[in-house]
Amino acid sequence: MSEKLIGAAIFGQSGGPSSVINSSAAGVFIEALKHSDVITKVYGAAHGIKGILDEHFYDIGEEDIAELELLRHTPSSALGSVRYKLKSVLDDETDYQRLLEVFRKYNIRYFFYNGGNDSMDTCNKVSKYMQSVDYECRVIGVPKTIDNDLFGTDHCPGYGSAAKYIATSIMELKLDSTVYNTGMVCVLEVMGRNAGWLTAAAQLATYKGLGADLIYLPETPFDIEEFVKAVQNVCAKNENKCMVVVSEVIKNAEGRYVGEFVASKTDLFGHAQLGGVGQTLANIIKERLGIKVRAIEFSLLQRCAAHLASKVDVDEAFASGKFAVQSAIAGHTDKMVCLERDYSAEGYVCRPALMDVALAANTEKKIPAEWILPAGKGLTQDYVDYALPLIQGDCKAPLEDGLPRFARLKKVWGND
Amino acid sequence: MSEKLIGAAIFGQSGGPSSVINSSAAGVFIEALKHSDVITKVYGAAHGIKGILDEHFYDIGEEDIAELELLRHTPSSALGSVRYKLKSVLDDETDYQRLLEVFRKYNIRYFFYNGGNDSMDTCNKVSKYMQSVDYECRVIGVPKTIDNDLFGTDHCPGYGSAAKYIATSIMELKLDSTVYNTGMVCVLEVMGRNAGWLTAAAQLATYKGLGADLIYLPETPFDIEEFVKAVQNVCAKNENKCMVVVSEVIKNAEGRYVGEFVASKTDLFGHAQLGGVGQTLANIIKERLGIKVRAIEFSLLQRCAAHLASKVDVDEAFASGKFAVQSAIAGHTDKMVCLERDYSAEGYVCRPALMDVALAANTEKKIPAEWILPAGKGLTQDYVDYALPLIQGDCKAPLEDGLPRFARLKKVWGND
Repeated sequence: MSEKLIGAAIFGQSGGPSSVINSSAAGVFIEALKHSDVITKVYGAAHGIKGILDEHFYDIGEEDIAELELLRHTPSSALGSVRYKLKSVLDDETDYQRLLEVFRKYNIRYFFYNGGNDSMDTCNKVSKYMQSVDYECRVIGVPKTIDNDLFGTDHCPGYGSAAKYIATSIMELKLDSTVYNTGMVCVLEVMGRNAGWLTAAAQLATYKGLGADLIYLPETPFDIEEFVKAVQNVCAKNENKCMVVVSEVIKNAEGRYVGEFVASKTDLFGHAQLGGVGQTLANIIKERLGIKVRAIEFSLLQRCAAHLASKVDVDEAFASGKFAVQSAIAGHTDKMVCLERDYSAEGYVCRPALMDVALAANTEKKIPAEWILPAGKGLTQDYVDYALPLIQGDCKAPLEDGLPRFARLKKVWGND
Repeated sequence: MSEKLIGAAIFGQSGGPSSVINSSAAGVFIEALKHSDVITKVYGAAHGIKGILDEHFYDIGEEDIAELELLRHTPSSALGSVRYKLKSVLDDETDYQRLLEVFRKYNIRYFFYNGGNDSMDTCNKVSKYMQSVDYECRVIGVPKTIDNDLFGTDHCPGYGSAAKYIATSIMELKLDSTVYNTGMVCVLEVMGRNAGWLTAAAQLATYKGLGADLIYLPETPFDIEEFVKAVQNVCAKNENKCMVVVSEVIKNAEGRYVGEFVASKTDLFGHAQLGGVGQTLANIIKERLGIKVRAIEFSLLQRCAAHLASKVDVDEAFASGKFAVQSAIAGHTDKMVCLERDYSAEGYVCRPALMDVALAANTEKKIPAEWILPAGKGLTQDYVDYALPLIQGDCKAPLEDGLPRFARLKKVWGND
């Protein structure tokens, strides 16, 4: 397709980690090391773009392939992550000049960056700059976010495993929290951004008959009085037992985050907010309905529970990394790997493909509005049909002493 | 050993559930159903002793054996649990008379009760009463507690799985929480009673090289100033990153619970305590050291995460239930099943045995003092050697739609 571009490759991880972000790293590294005729060196940037700016990166050629394979099952970002947004080149060219300097010094001709919207923005800006200064470099973004809000891909590596963790945990908690013959309102708080994909995973537990009674997505304005009434209704029918799943970023009708909104009302509710919105809502129920409550935050557990990863997710994350390398070698640049699902096929068929990275950088993937039921009521079967294939299969690190044997990288510095 | 005692058997579950309490139920039920020559009916009490008093129990003979087998991997108490302490018969005989009435009505001659110290106290009291009124009934306690504080048994079914969950989660969180090149103090709160066995499980993650920096057991008086200093020391050496594991029931030198003690100092620290002790300590670190913090409570997850159960634990829980039935049929009564480990054997060898139930009822199993290092420093290798065999192997429910297929009991009422 394009002429051979010979030089080094660098890969970085960015943004919040996931259970499978390292599986994409494994896909990139293992594939890149196979192409030593064109990819002369494989670097892993320490803490993403910051590692390139600081000239801190590892020589992946020094790693054992067996350890790179274990990255498939090792949660979090093995190279270290970063939250660093490049300024517009029009405002400040410093970072771009520095990147060019490093790329030239190490003859870096392939740049792979793994992350969400912001990371795709980084890919886009770096690629455009390198083009503007006539430095040939192929740039491919590898998608990652448990939030599933990356545009242009059917779903995003990281989401399936987080959804599987959330649904499984809700099923287990449902059995646990209803065990006594006394009342209890249990409020589970799920991470999220504007799109409520993670909270939506609660619907999968409902589908299996062990779900929450009420599910609150950030897409639907949250009204505290209606919430209290809804809990009261469930409790009345169900021996004062009620399980609620709530997104940490629910907003009220004015668009204010409920956590923040309620916390500011310390006088009205008589307490300051220390925990998250789940704890706050639990306190309100306790005060208003006098029922025993418990708030549970899935916190970081939902993004790092690699022991409960979805096999489909692990495999797709790996395939995305591998495909990024193959595509770059074939001459593609300015692209993000996306997952294309064939909805006309029988069963689940999904393949990596390419899309313009600029498009992914600036658009958010929302839950279709028609899948969302009224406040508290969760989602339609369309969501279940969409999400169920993404959580299939088990796939985790081998056990050593009964505990996971995660990858142990040597991390030999590749910079001078 | 003793003459054949023909009659019905009843089994109840009591106290906080665990990942494997239903595995003991499976052991009791499956074994009891095999002995229809002596055990004429097998009942499962709804909500423990309360279900017997209320004459609410299920006819287990109506259940499919395949579903009873799935109980091995189904968390929480399938029959419902209860926290109900029988009064001394000298103070109030009402409950005892009612139990006798129900036992007589259904010709119940075997009583199996699954729980911790309080449940063993119930076994002891019921058995002594039945003897005093010359009603022949064999009573065997089946041990259960994630807290591992039941006396007389090497360890307790439920502990291994909770310990495996805690150690695995700490390893995953360690990778996740150190991913950025900025500081973060992460405080993980573990459940507990007077004995810090659950918190001690953090030492297993340390043993695997992915442990917390500081571990605080309830056995060692907790000093807030020393704690702040210890965190500061770790942060100074470690780019402001520090992971702390803390028992929810740590006490200060005067024996007061730290959560309660700190919460009462709302003026000094400027806030009320809403979350647990982990959140409170995290807030203190934020205030005093100005480092970003995150508090994570394992909450109910640590006792119901059956997807991460230890195979050794699941098997021992089952074996304990089975052995209880075999022992009762053989003529034993007034006993609790305990686990006897052969420390002289090569490898891990452990078998169910019997001990006096009265002894288990009133004594607490503590962590040997010589295994406990000074505040924050965790435990010696002795603890690791003790606990590691208990978390071996994986064993979980089969997947259906990528999610656990837990037992679905018919729950046909067995009472009139």
